Amino acid sequence: MSQAPRAPIHTPLPTVNARIYPSGGLDVLSRDEVARLRDASSGMHDLLRRCALAVLTTGSVSDDPRAAQEQYKDFDIQVHQQDRGMRIDLSNAPAMAFVDGEIIRGVAELLFAVVRDLAFRAIELGEDGGRDLDSTDGITDAVFGLLRNARILEPADPNLVVCWGGHSISREEYIYTKQVGYELGLRGLDICTGCGPGAMKGPMKGANIAHAKQRRRHPRYIGVTEPGIIAAESPNPIVNHLVIMPDIEKRLEAFVRIGHGIIVFPGGVGTAEEILYLLGILLREENAELPFPLIFTGPTASAPYFEQIDRFLRLTLGEAATSRYEIVIADPTEVAKKMTAGIRKVREHRIAQKDSFFFNWSIDIPLEFQQPFRPTHEAMAALDLHKGRKPHELAADLRRAFSGIVAGNVKEEGMRHIDERGPFEIHGDPEMMQSLDQLLRAFVEQRRMKIQGDYQPCYRVLG
Amino acid sequence: MSQAPRAPIHTPLPTVNARIYPSGGLDVLSRDEVARLRDASSGMHDLLRRCALAVLTTGSVSDDPRAAQEQYKDFDIQVHQQDRGMRIDLSNAPAMAFVDGEIIRGVAELLFAVVRDLAFRAIELGEDGGRDLDSTDGITDAVFGLLRNARILEPADPNLVVCWGGHSISREEYIYTKQVGYELGLRGLDICTGCGPGAMKGPMKGANIAHAKQRRRHPRYIGVTEPGIIAAESPNPIVNHLVIMPDIEKRLEAFVRIGHGIIVFPGGVGTAEEILYLLGILLREENAELPFPLIFTGPTASAPYFEQIDRFLRLTLGEAATSRYEIVIADPTEVAKKMTAGIRKVREHRIAQKDSFFFNWSIDIPLEFQQPFRPTHEAMAALDLHKGRKPHELAADLRRAFSGIVAGNVKEEGMRHIDERGPFEIHGDPEMMQSLDQLLRAFVEQRRMKIQGDYQPCYRVLG
Amino acid sequence: MSQAPRAPIHTPLPTVNARIYPSGGLDVLSRDEVARLRDASSGMHDLLRRCALAVLTTGSVSDDPRAAQEQYKDFDIQVHQQDRGMRIDLSNAPAMAFVDGEIIRGVAELLFAVVRDLAFRAIELGEDGGRDLDSTDGITDAVFGLLRNARILEPADPNLVVCWGGHSISREEYIYTKQVGYELGLRGLDICTGCGPGAMKGPMKGANIAHAKQRRRHPRYIGVTEPGIIAAESPNPIVNHLVIMPDIEKRLEAFVRIGHGIIVFPGGVGTAEEILYLLGILLREENAELPFPLIFTGPTASAPYFEQIDRFLRLTLGEAATSRYEIVIADPTEVAKKMTAGIRKVREHRIAQKDSFFFNWSIDIPLEFQQPFRPTHEAMAALDLHKGRKPHELAADLRRAFSGIVAGNVKEEGMRHIDERGPFEIHGDPEMMQSLDQLLRAFVEQRRMKIQGDYQPCYRVLG
Amino acid sequence: MSQAPRAPIHTPLPTVNARIYPSGGLDVLSRDEVARLRDASSGMHDLLRRCALAVLTTGSVSDDPRAAQEQYKDFDIQVHQQDRGMRIDLSNAPAMAFVDGEIIRGVAELLFAVVRDLAFRAIELGEDGGRDLDSTDGITDAVFGLLRNARILEPADPNLVVCWGGHSISREEYIYTKQVGYELGLRGLDICTGCGPGAMKGPMKGANIAHAKQRRRHPRYIGVTEPGIIAAESPNPIVNHLVIMPDIEKRLEAFVRIGHGIIVFPGGVGTAEEILYLLGILLREENAELPFPLIFTGPTASAPYFEQIDRFLRLTLGEAATSRYEIVIADPTEVAKKMTAGIRKVREHRIAQKDSFFFNWSIDIPLEFQQPFRPTHEAMAALDLHKGRKPHELAADLRRAFSGIVAGNVKEEGMRHIDERGPFEIHGDPEMMQSLDQLLRAFVEQRRMKIQGDYQPCYRVLG
Repeated sequence: MSQAPRAPIHTPLPTVNARIYPSGGLDVLSRDEVARLRDASSGMHDLLRRCALAVLTTGSVSDDPRAAQEQYKDFDIQVHQQDRGMRIDLSNAPAMAFVDGEIIRGVAELLFAVVRDLAFRAIELGEDGGRDLDSTDGITDAVFGLLRNARILEPADPNLVVCWGGHSISREEYIYTKQVGYELGLRGLDICTGCGPGAMKGPMKGANIAHAKQRRRHPRYIGVTEPGIIAAESPNPIVNHLVIMPDIEKRLEAFVRIGHGIIVFPGGVGTAEEILYLLGILLREENAELPFPLIFTGPTASAPYFEQIDRFLRLTLGEAATSRYEIVIADPTEVAKKMTAGIRKVREHRIAQKDSFFFNWSIDIPLEFQQPFRPTHEAMAALDLHKGRKPHELAADLRRAFSGIVAGNVKEEGMRHIDERGPFEIHGDPEMMQSLDQLLRAFVEQRRMKIQGDYQPCYRVLG
Repeated sequence: MSQAPRAPIHTPLPTVNARIYPSGGLDVLSRDEVARLRDASSGMHDLLRRCALAVLTTGSVSDDPRAAQEQYKDFDIQVHQQDRGMRIDLSNAPAMAFVDGEIIRGVAELLFAVVRDLAFRAIELGEDGGRDLDSTDGITDAVFGLLRNARILEPADPNLVVCWGGHSISREEYIYTKQVGYELGLRGLDICTGCGPGAMKGPMKGANIAHAKQRRRHPRYIGVTEPGIIAAESPNPIVNHLVIMPDIEKRLEAFVRIGHGIIVFPGGVGTAEEILYLLGILLREENAELPFPLIFTGPTASAPYFEQIDRFLRLTLGEAATSRYEIVIADPTEVAKKMTAGIRKVREHRIAQKDSFFFNWSIDIPLEFQQPFRPTHEAMAALDLHKGRKPHELAADLRRAFSGIVAGNVKEEGMRHIDERGPFEIHGDPEMMQSLDQLLRAFVEQRRMKIQGDYQPCYRVLG
Repeated sequence: MSQAPRAPIHTPLPTVNARIYPSGGLDVLSRDEVARLRDASSGMHDLLRRCALAVLTTGSVSDDPRAAQEQYKDFDIQVHQQDRGMRIDLSNAPAMAFVDGEIIRGVAELLFAVVRDLAFRAIELGEDGGRDLDSTDGITDAVFGLLRNARILEPADPNLVVCWGGHSISREEYIYTKQVGYELGLRGLDICTGCGPGAMKGPMKGANIAHAKQRRRHPRYIGVTEPGIIAAESPNPIVNHLVIMPDIEKRLEAFVRIGHGIIVFPGGVGTAEEILYLLGILLREENAELPFPLIFTGPTASAPYFEQIDRFLRLTLGEAATSRYEIVIADPTEVAKKMTAGIRKVREHRIAQKDSFFFNWSIDIPLEFQQPFRPTHEAMAALDLHKGRKPHELAADLRRAFSGIVAGNVKEEGMRHIDERGPFEIHGDPEMMQSLDQLLRAFVEQRRMKIQGDYQPCYRVLG
Repeated sequence: MSQAPRAPIHTPLPTVNARIYPSGGLDVLSRDEVARLRDASSGMHDLLRRCALAVLTTGSVSDDPRAAQEQYKDFDIQVHQQDRGMRIDLSNAPAMAFVDGEIIRGVAELLFAVVRDLAFRAIELGEDGGRDLDSTDGITDAVFGLLRNARILEPADPNLVVCWGGHSISREEYIYTKQVGYELGLRGLDICTGCGPGAMKGPMKGANIAHAKQRRRHPRYIGVTEPGIIAAESPNPIVNHLVIMPDIEKRLEAFVRIGHGIIVFPGGVGTAEEILYLLGILLREENAELPFPLIFTGPTASAPYFEQIDRFLRLTLGEAATSRYEIVIADPTEVAKKMTAGIRKVREHRIAQKDSFFFNWSIDIPLEFQQPFRPTHEAMAALDLHKGRKPHELAADLRRAFSGIVAGNVKEEGMRHIDERGPFEIHGDPEMMQSLDQLLRAFVEQRRMKIQGDYQPCYRVLG
């Protein structure tokens, strides 16, 4: 890599102009792929610009890349084809990604990952890409294709632990996520997260130290994100494999298909939704025999959080739902041992079922989990939150209800809907709805969901 | 790799049943790709079976894989998906590919290359692959995609020499091809050929020894073939990168786009056609500025062969054509030095033009060279072999005439056409046609074209 | 590596019995070398046992390996020769070095480093090793031999920064050492320290994160220790190259010959002695032309510490001494930039002088710096601390005075000498001696030198 | 590596002046080691010059490096220490070691091996090296030290086959040695020979092709030589590990201690001596339980050669001797299978005996086999070649007799002895001596021992 830094003029934050060349041989793009990345009219260039900026501000103190979009208005990126492959030209790029005028190599790698994924998407998932994105198999195939192209799929022994949890957690919780990561790392496990800060960074940091002690040569710190999220949360600087999925649903499917087990740390509403998404899948009859280690864990102070989640899940999905997860409080070693044992069973099951180690083809994810839910008044009114339904169906609808309520409370579009048409009307069992309400109020109290003013439910229960 | 060999019963040639697993991490197939390879109805399975058998008989004394198809009638191959990726099950496979029950690792690698290329083709170039195979750009893109997927495209310094020439050449000529390969290898050049025996094997063998002396860590011996050719010529055992292009035209385009220079050894009619194909491209105005080292070479005894070719080219395409090639007789060191110097210019040109080192995007190959020529009476009558035409147009038509005449003399379908409708009628300049006739007669005399009985021209010149 | 853990009985701390095999190919010992390591009568076995225990308690909370000697009385280590090379049998080893019964791989590597160095020493520096350890060249050759055998000497570009400083420093100082290490690491510099905690660990930790970001493949965290020190300070767990020199003087010479620059963080009396050792060498006329970047640095709160050191050096060695070091306060980036620039000059000088990059043959270290100083009353009375002497001679005597005074105040043997024969009598310039006294009192106040009761000078100045 | 070639003037053969730098990190010499290599007075420089010249003429058509000494009288080599380690300056070096002014990398590696071994020898085995070269253990330790320093000792699975045989053998025999090497290579076995032409080159060439097919990444072609031999036989160009032992006896011990099995191809008197050396060791009671695969093999035409050897061994050493070797005629696959099976037993034995894989410490080699035999009349008269002696004692004396007779027939010093004092007088059993005589006459007839004029025995049998 080499670049020609230029002193910026009239810019509040220091910037650099640079030319970046990939150091490995991974980045062979076709002329057509380069052209599409450059084509401003397709929207692809703007997407590239935003993702690149997020990567270039990785590790910044401010954890808000939206601020970055403001601060580096003149930033631009151009991809060129050249002798040894590709060249990236950056203009007015954040100086923080450079040391003495040289780009930090890890940042450059993430930059090339962005280009690679967007090029793949432009070609393979574009209008004339020939993929059927309306069928379950077609979507799963697209997810597979993106992950393969990003070299995430490796025929190694199962060892990938997905960690979920909030991006803004307490210091005590953060330290705990590092300790869990350390114990996972000592046992040779790799980490995959949503690649932002907080519970997405801690496990990677802890594992990094443990991997160094264990002299692990090629540890993997996989970040799975999508354009909306990366624009809000820069990948943390430990991530050494980054993949940008096209949307949230494909991102969730990626987690579920490449992870050999999942650990959930305390988080906000997003984390609660992820739990419901996962249980909605795991409680399907089709997945009944499938081993899938799932551990909720946090420090002692976080015990109430998980008790509340647990109560809510028992009440809504029934006691059976609890067979799919374990809660471990304040014991990182125990978490790592249980995860190791769980992944051992995953390994045996894959061998027995002739399923691949690197992609969980067997897990059944129906189309309704693959397609986005848009929380309109009609969609919310169509939910059916009554006891007696199959747990996995109920979980799916609960996730949607949850998603809609959150939107009505904190998302701009949702709040406007409520303003215009009044509260959502939800058909639901009163006890269940009350429990949901308590959960939401607790999140607000614990500052895990940030709202302005007092909390006002944005829905009415119709029974 | 591991396998469970079984003693064959009632089989004339020894065979082995085996299960093969890839050793590297390159072979990550999707469920869909595996399914298509297994689908007998699509014809893909039969293609896989034939290519696999050619690879498994690599290095056999008999150089005729068609015999292999006869000898190993019960051979079958099945591709399965499994824990670490892929598993290949072979039944009644040629024992010659195994040592004490273990498959030779290089053979296994070629086998996985076959599976990889056919899987890519099944998906990407299939009906719903979304590629436009009717346009120049679409075809070039498909060629690029196949080569990239086969990991042939590397952003290294230009060093790839394509060697063309006959598969059945004299011992003296064969030794000469080894010597040239040795001198190329001493200078750090890699070799790409059609991957059969003769002039396709010699340069690789010579380079192999030189690369060992120079401690070259990752020398490349690239074989570019297509289903019809691999079924007739097993890849020689030195090949360590194999790619199966879908047809002859894409194979020729692959040679021209990845090679940084071409050496032509003595060969038969096929080699003559290849020369006309290449000159037809190089003589286009669009390619006038493009450096492309092209050397015809052979031992002293082969001098008359090249003199004749040279005379024919001068007469038909004009003296200008000779600016595009050099003839070097009996001097392997000189050939290597000239090639090294030529590739240095290619390198400079690519840098100046911002073209990639690994794929010659700049060279202009029109659609007529990308689409197959079918030699019917009508097509032959439409040729226009008169002086005064632009050399590259004339070269294109000469190649077609050549191709048709060969078909009329030795290929089953062509001979039947002649039987049914009489000789082809060709509109051509008498002197030019006479020269062509002399060339063909010389090939027959030198046993470079094998015909039964006396040579009878299969065409009439109309003037 | 593999081992058969056994549950310990009646042991207060958990222990493990294990068999360890080296994973790399580095550990080829001869039968004779193994025999000497096993020979208890030679003292070598006890030395091996103590060093091994220090390594096995690396990263322990208690930073006192002497406690470890108490706590793991039953610990033993045996070296055996076996099929693939060497086997180490551990009995009653600290369980903290193991994860689920498997030894941490980094710990195992340090263990093999211990065995390797002691084996080398047993053979090469033993009675019949044929080395002349009484001459300057002989000692330097022994230092070279040990470092080469430990694979510390690499013909890479100069990039090794030696960091000195206290093992028990303030939290603020520790964080600062990490920041400096981080900035060094971002610039591709490797770290070498005495391999204990505090200022010996911080720079490695900081560099480790920066190296990960820069994707440095083989960063070096070199720990240089000797038996007396390692028994008091376990190597920190980041160290990935450990070498055990035979004594303190050879350890200091190793630092000076392999380091391309030295950074001094705040420390206690030991650090002050090291500064005098180094200046005593650098101020020699023979070394006048030799570039050797030397930076004293710490956070703002540590400024007074360096001011005092600086005053003392100016007063005793003269203003000229200040040309050999720079003081940078609270600016890690500046430290790293200055070090980078300084090492660039070292590189140029080595090339010009045809000196090797990996071992500073040119620097002149006289025999008096290579041989240990034993602070008896006679030796102390022989010192000559008056102005007018050459700075380097004065520096050497000051270092000795320092060493003796420290011994008289805090070391068991020294204190006994004082009890028996009264204070040392030192011939010295009053002003100089007063300045020395102030420095010592400041160390006591800042808790950098720990004494019991009030501070009482253990010497009288004779003038 | 880089060099500044200069056109030679007035030199019959083309030469080059060049500066060579090592490419790997293996070559860290001390100042003292460099000095000794440069010291002409020690004889070390002349030795270095001769060995270097042999390496630089590797692969030359003429197989006589003594001619090279004549042809390149002005050749010189100087070793310098420099920034990254070592620099070698060559003046008037044979141009054949260079391609377009660049030294062939493999040749450069062998050159650095020469420097490394001679430096080790200068220091470690010199007068003040501290090694006891008068005891069995001391000599074995020196052999071990040299091999370890040359990185020949690897803790890998046993797979090293030593091949002995003549350097000038028939074409048929040479092709056979290649076939055997090919079959060994297919089975993952590495090759060690005396590193000259003929039977020392063929097995390496064959294995090289097989290793390429099996994609063996780091195949080892080890050449073990000594100054007298390398000056007469350049290492063949396939050798990638070269070690120069100080004398013939240490070279033989190296073969026996690092080889896991030995194959003997047809050869001359030297080969016969080697057989007697090895049987003299294997027939000792101390080695009775030691597995050591030993196979005599050649093409059909060589069968009589081995029959004669076999008859002689039976007659002299008794039928028991035959238990130590097997004769396989014209079956390379069988040889490789037997060797593979034999090495499997060696592996099991080493594990059971806790002996290392890479150095056969267990095999008992008495001092008399480690010390050179000088064939004077007195020494010859002291031999005792009568039946009834222990086979291994008899083998030792037979080897000596053999050695003396050869010297008396073809070596300059031996022939002069005979001229001066008449034939040797040997006390021996008539039948045994007659058999020996027949063997010698057969060698003469088969042109395996070249003498001038008719063959005249140089000894008298006294009975």
